[in-house]
Amino acid sequence: MEIKNRIILALDLQTIEEAMKVAGCVREHIDTIKIGYPLVLAEGLKSISIVKEEFDCKVIADFKVADIPETNTKIADLTFKAGADALIVHGFVGEDSVKACVDSSQKFDREIFLLTEMSHPGASRFLQIAAEEIASMGVDMGLKNYVAPSTKLNRLNKIRSIVGEDSFIISPGVGVQGGDPNQTLKFANAIIVGRSIYSSDNPEKAIKSIINDIKF
Amino acid sequence: MEIKNRIILALDLQTIEEAMKVAGCVREHIDTIKIGYPLVLAEGLKSISIVKEEFDCKVIADFKVADIPETNTKIADLTFKAGADALIVHGFVGEDSVKACVDSSQKFDREIFLLTEMSHPGASRFLQIAAEEIASMGVDMGLKNYVAPSTKLNRLNKIRSIVGEDSFIISPGVGVQGGDPNQTLKFANAIIVGRSIYSSDNPEKAIKSIINDIKF
Repeated sequence: MEIKNRIILALDLQTIEEAMKVAGCVREHIDTIKIGYPLVLAEGLKSISIVKEEFDCKVIADFKVADIPETNTKIADLTFKAGADALIVHGFVGEDSVKACVDSSQKFDREIFLLTEMSHPGASRFLQIAAEEIASMGVDMGLKNYVAPSTKLNRLNKIRSIVGEDSFIISPGVGVQGGDPNQTLKFANAIIVGRSIYSSDNPEKAIKSIINDIKF
Repeated sequence: MEIKNRIILALDLQTIEEAMKVAGCVREHIDTIKIGYPLVLAEGLKSISIVKEEFDCKVIADFKVADIPETNTKIADLTFKAGADALIVHGFVGEDSVKACVDSSQKFDREIFLLTEMSHPGASRFLQIAAEEIASMGVDMGLKNYVAPSTKLNRLNKIRSIVGEDSFIISPGVGVQGGDPNQTLKFANAIIVGRSIYSSDNPEKAIKSIINDIKF
């Protein structure tokens, strides 16, 4: 996936109106937006196509899909039908559940990202222990896209070493959660930034500041 | 949670029309319906209140919530605001993420169910290894409601031994996935049945047959 300025905007908002306002402020600087369940539950799955059409951007649906294969298939099919370019899927539910989403993505010619580990403190208890094997499972399945956290650079580096240089890693946790853009981009292909932009009084200034900080 | 006939109907369908039809066939026999993302993504979060109002039933939102605490709070708040009586939450993401949903449930005077383990084959790789500690985490957090699979009775028994006799366990995987209702109810308080009912030519006959099989 090609991502402009190596920044994905996480629109973790709950109204289309707010989402449009923030995305409108930074539209010159980004071409990929991550949308999660808060917006979709509040405004419906149509949020994906509305955002795509308005901003001519790619949308990654961050649904952290984590159900049995049959249900994952239904969730993925609906999400891709709604226009999502990619879907984020939990790895800890196992290979069959992930494969259900992969099969759906291939049917619609879209992509999935395998979530190996997360950035919040609680993730250290169960997820972190499994993360390397989850990444290895993704490699064995032939997956090329991964999500790994910017807040634990040694972990991000470890995940990179497992999935290889040819894989594509996107990394949340930059900004408010503590991840450093430059350090993260040593190991990740793109950073996901949310609150630092959408909670800023001046989202365009905030994103420009991040872009300026990134040494390409 | 009081559940009529100890059966929860899993309405894993994708249109309100189908869901209403199936629920209508079995309305005399059940008072608790589980709704997942396939229906909510297809028809919106309003599906919850539509089903509740039509059938005067309790709705468990099976969203297997598995995000960072901040996002879990948003998902739980929206789900309870939409009328859900309970929300199913993954334990694998850690205590802070679960606590975010617990806090939301308390704010709305609703309930959460902690998912300890799942019924599909892939769950054996990562989830099963963590399941006992996830259940223990729930006990330490003071949680009383759990989800554990009917397809692995020794595992269900183990989870019961950890969460104690006073806890309330609901169990999916009965029917098409292979779980036996009677055996499951030795360890679980209620079974979750989906495909055996909604894929039946005669959903009422199917649920009556299960009720007759259950030895109270």
